[in-house]
Amino acid sequence: MIVIMKVGATRDQVQAVVDRVSELGFSPHPLFGEERTVIAVIGDERPVDESVFRIMSGVDRIVRILKPFKLASRDFHPDDTVVPINGCSIGGNQVIIMAGPCSVESKEQLLETAWAVKEAGVDILRGGAFKPRSSPYSFQGLGERGLEILAEVKEETGLAIITEVMAPEQVSLVGKYADILQIGTRNMQNYNLLHAVGEYGKPVLLKRGMMSTIDELLMSAEYILSHGNYRVILCERGIRTFETKTRNTLDISAVPVLKQNTHLPIVIDPSHACGNWEWVEPLAMGSVAAGADGLLVEVHPHPDMALSDGAQSLRPDKFAALVKKVRAVAAAVGRTV
Amino acid sequence: MIVIMKVGATRDQVQAVVDRVSELGFSPHPLFGEERTVIAVIGDERPVDESVFRIMSGVDRIVRILKPFKLASRDFHPDDTVVPINGCSIGGNQVIIMAGPCSVESKEQLLETAWAVKEAGVDILRGGAFKPRSSPYSFQGLGERGLEILAEVKEETGLAIITEVMAPEQVSLVGKYADILQIGTRNMQNYNLLHAVGEYGKPVLLKRGMMSTIDELLMSAEYILSHGNYRVILCERGIRTFETKTRNTLDISAVPVLKQNTHLPIVIDPSHACGNWEWVEPLAMGSVAAGADGLLVEVHPHPDMALSDGAQSLRPDKFAALVKKVRAVAAAVGRTV
Amino acid sequence: MIVIMKVGATRDQVQAVVDRVSELGFSPHPLFGEERTVIAVIGDERPVDESVFRIMSGVDRIVRILKPFKLASRDFHPDDTVVPINGCSIGGNQVIIMAGPCSVESKEQLLETAWAVKEAGVDILRGGAFKPRSSPYSFQGLGERGLEILAEVKEETGLAIITEVMAPEQVSLVGKYADILQIGTRNMQNYNLLHAVGEYGKPVLLKRGMMSTIDELLMSAEYILSHGNYRVILCERGIRTFETKTRNTLDISAVPVLKQNTHLPIVIDPSHACGNWEWVEPLAMGSVAAGADGLLVEVHPHPDMALSDGAQSLRPDKFAALVKKVRAVAAAVGRTV
Amino acid sequence: MIVIMKVGATRDQVQAVVDRVSELGFSPHPLFGEERTVIAVIGDERPVDESVFRIMSGVDRIVRILKPFKLASRDFHPDDTVVPINGCSIGGNQVIIMAGPCSVESKEQLLETAWAVKEAGVDILRGGAFKPRSSPYSFQGLGERGLEILAEVKEETGLAIITEVMAPEQVSLVGKYADILQIGTRNMQNYNLLHAVGEYGKPVLLKRGMMSTIDELLMSAEYILSHGNYRVILCERGIRTFETKTRNTLDISAVPVLKQNTHLPIVIDPSHACGNWEWVEPLAMGSVAAGADGLLVEVHPHPDMALSDGAQSLRPDKFAALVKKVRAVAAAVGRTV
Repeated sequence: MIVIMKVGATRDQVQAVVDRVSELGFSPHPLFGEERTVIAVIGDERPVDESVFRIMSGVDRIVRILKPFKLASRDFHPDDTVVPINGCSIGGNQVIIMAGPCSVESKEQLLETAWAVKEAGVDILRGGAFKPRSSPYSFQGLGERGLEILAEVKEETGLAIITEVMAPEQVSLVGKYADILQIGTRNMQNYNLLHAVGEYGKPVLLKRGMMSTIDELLMSAEYILSHGNYRVILCERGIRTFETKTRNTLDISAVPVLKQNTHLPIVIDPSHACGNWEWVEPLAMGSVAAGADGLLVEVHPHPDMALSDGAQSLRPDKFAALVKKVRAVAAAVGRTV
Repeated sequence: MIVIMKVGATRDQVQAVVDRVSELGFSPHPLFGEERTVIAVIGDERPVDESVFRIMSGVDRIVRILKPFKLASRDFHPDDTVVPINGCSIGGNQVIIMAGPCSVESKEQLLETAWAVKEAGVDILRGGAFKPRSSPYSFQGLGERGLEILAEVKEETGLAIITEVMAPEQVSLVGKYADILQIGTRNMQNYNLLHAVGEYGKPVLLKRGMMSTIDELLMSAEYILSHGNYRVILCERGIRTFETKTRNTLDISAVPVLKQNTHLPIVIDPSHACGNWEWVEPLAMGSVAAGADGLLVEVHPHPDMALSDGAQSLRPDKFAALVKKVRAVAAAVGRTV
Repeated sequence: MIVIMKVGATRDQVQAVVDRVSELGFSPHPLFGEERTVIAVIGDERPVDESVFRIMSGVDRIVRILKPFKLASRDFHPDDTVVPINGCSIGGNQVIIMAGPCSVESKEQLLETAWAVKEAGVDILRGGAFKPRSSPYSFQGLGERGLEILAEVKEETGLAIITEVMAPEQVSLVGKYADILQIGTRNMQNYNLLHAVGEYGKPVLLKRGMMSTIDELLMSAEYILSHGNYRVILCERGIRTFETKTRNTLDISAVPVLKQNTHLPIVIDPSHACGNWEWVEPLAMGSVAAGADGLLVEVHPHPDMALSDGAQSLRPDKFAALVKKVRAVAAAVGRTV
Repeated sequence: MIVIMKVGATRDQVQAVVDRVSELGFSPHPLFGEERTVIAVIGDERPVDESVFRIMSGVDRIVRILKPFKLASRDFHPDDTVVPINGCSIGGNQVIIMAGPCSVESKEQLLETAWAVKEAGVDILRGGAFKPRSSPYSFQGLGERGLEILAEVKEETGLAIITEVMAPEQVSLVGKYADILQIGTRNMQNYNLLHAVGEYGKPVLLKRGMMSTIDELLMSAEYILSHGNYRVILCERGIRTFETKTRNTLDISAVPVLKQNTHLPIVIDPSHACGNWEWVEPLAMGSVAAGADGLLVEVHPHPDMALSDGAQSLRPDKFAALVKKVRAVAAAVGRTV
């Protein structure tokens, strides 16, 4: 941590900071520049609230040196984490595509989609049973019946299941049916939920908050890891910006930035990022070329009848075409699908 | 709802939309411009997912006409909602100031703060027992012991209590101790929690998500109202923007915009908005001049010893000065504090 | 400047940075923490591009210590700058209101507005002759004829004139007519223009770019100051965020932040910030309560006939009411209007 | 245009809008819903300021139906525009890579870079002679001497030249030396400059403002097109968001969105988007996979000695590796480099 003093800070103010640093068990190193004095604080700053110094007289601002996360950091875990799911591996050489409808609407709808995505080459089926909806008047998902349908379709098709969990008390219920527990964008900082899935132990796909920074995403991953669960997959799904043409703005740079900063796998959800099925294919191709470990894509057999997110869902034939093109791009970067 | 067709959409495509509109029980009104055709959809569009039309061939985009919320809307409830708390009223002529520390740290700390803010003229004491923290390594609050301390201090000072609830299963516990249940910024779209406080029935202070629009805030209020609880107080506490000098950007325009669109009271939290005690006073004064119904201010007897948010906490003497200045501004706009 | 090394940076990498620091004429102070090494660079870092170090092996990131601006900084110029205009002073105890139409449309329109705002108590008339418009098909202003009208109305009413200049080659022309040269939000980083008004010497009102940080605003002011013109007035007029209810988001926190960081006066343009006349009055009142030195308000005698920005323009009677309320708020904070 | 009335708007208010619509020469179509009335306005709305209606009593808001740009729109110009430069074509099947240093620093520096990028397979050399810098104390470019160096290097290597023009009065000077005139991100809405390059007629690369929407980018292109110059290349170079890990956020979705909405070619500048050479390669690969027509990449023989933007510049060997990988991705999507 570096404490930067104001221009004109007095010797006494500097000394008071130096004393406080020592008092807290750190080693202070004051450096006197022509304009300003800075005090370097040597030691593990992570548990210290920077306010302790910021509030002192003559202090201008604080700069943290250490990253706030440790378990999620590549610094202390250089090798890629690979999460095995149902015979495939997320985070290895293969690019994993997870696909399916936004919501589970009926056994027929899910089964039709499942066979279609399986034929296109997919191993993991997505589908929401509990749906976070911004309006209390919108379809809220089938709940536990949706989970049962997922289980039946898994049984019939052999596809692994990813589905969302919305509250700590749902974790063990959803966990009975799901191979991967999904934490949605609005729950990325629902700490009670992160705690619960951390203890539960099954693989977790953690979606980035639509207005959360990359560091905050890694801090939320740290919550799960610090409760003992290392099988965490990160998901970039678009962030909120001033641009309104797309539903959100896909932050594709998050792929190389995360690859450098963490060992956890990173997948992209191009469907939520853009909100329009017409743009999903180019974004999927771009994501794989930029190094993503997988894709999460919305597919619906009849998007015009979908109870949610129809506009961003691909019909099965369009999805099959997407997989083919993604496979070509993956090959060009030395990976398989 | 207005369905806007693409330039060059065919007669058949227009007809298909018209037919679909009728099929869904609405009345279609196609209008043929020189460049584009639009189809007006007459009826209550709220339960309809716009994707139903957006996915159709020849459709460019959809414009919704009706606001998605109803119970929270001033259109159907022109009179201001006033929430009575412990002898004072939020949303009436009086400007209510709620103040106290970020976290409850000890009986001594809370009691010292409580007497100080009471002397300055405050009726409602804030203090967190359960704390949402972005790092798993930070102080997470005293939990139930914190709630007990709040109750003891309420008993001794007569101040009403506002404190945060973070998960649906905590609602009845926190509700036993609190006069107002606070929903934090990261939980504004935690729908299970909104549902729970909606059913519980005690007054709720709903903080705007730092990444949420004004309409989304009103939709979250609608969740609570639609479960039968009309005692909802909205709180603007800064939104996330590209500016980094301040912790967040106080969206002061939200005050007149909300006053026009909803009957619910609106308070401002200048402490979280700016993150620096030096700027809290001018923002508090500006908020009241702009029409806010109240303030939520962080006060700590020893900010440099605070376990959280010390940098944005005012010392009691600075806070007393703030109240005095806010009182003068309130008088200038015809209100009392 | 602080150079932060990566975890695991080698001794040689640290030594290479230390050598480079010395080579550039600075004094290096390496500090060895448990996890990371940082190298403090003592000296005036302003002219150094931080890339010089960031590109080196083993370097993680760079933190600047000194603020990039000097002439605009309060650190080296503690007293408030006061800009005298036509008998009044911007930046002193008086709150200055500048008002008038978005565009000069005709002599009649401007004169009617001018007498109305003068009667309400205003000393400075705004009105655009050259208009930056996002569409090439919109009204672009009357150009030089607009300037002549401004001069005629100044002659008749005695009001001082503020009007926009859009290009370096227009500066001397506009300067002949204007008492204050306005730099618009889209030109805040038009460096050739900043250079030109810096050399011209007349008072400049510099609008913050709608997506520029406070530090960038101060850097643009520094451009003008560094070319010899110290009569610079800063203007906050709303920034671009994800919220779309308002045209932009008024960053009211910029007032106290700028007051702390610079000696230059700061005025607020609530009309452009919100884009809707109904919200201008509360924002104007809030701005003055928060410490603004002045206001820039759009007034039009017939907003429904305005050639630009009618929706955010106040009718003269509404404007007179606003001035009255602003006066009461100003009095409450110890200032006059 | 659709005029949406407030809930409870009176018959007289509706009639007044209907009359005003007719008065302005449009055809009004009122539609009476249960909650609200809307009035459809049939005719070419482009020249009409929506304020005309928004300001009227009982009006809630206005929705525009037609896109504000016409010449730039694919609706009226379905075929891709292809801009021929020096034997290659931008906007055709070939992906064009433009590369070179941020600033022209010396003949030696530029020549060394030019031969290196030429060997890697590049046809167009970038390099700035006039540099927009946020600090008046930073290197501002070599000016006209920089242009002469560009001309000399063009002569020796046969590479075409792209360089920035910052002010209207520089257009003819820069135009003498450049094959493509670049408009920088801070000048995207410098309308006098757009006008000037529109009349000048040479190919223009128009960078998206870091704070500008896709529609605003197309409006700025419309300015150039409306002055007679159709040889416009659009460039996405990152937008400003809340994320600070990267210099800006590359909006890769802009590629498919622009491809759908305009016939103009679109290139990507990954160097400015991320600001760090380590991330340029994956972003370049992703951009080409997503459909970009070209890339603009910063290359410097000695990034640690660069006078600007060294941290985001690639060394020639890294750049040659990038071109190879981009070529493989281009092949996978059926294009050449």
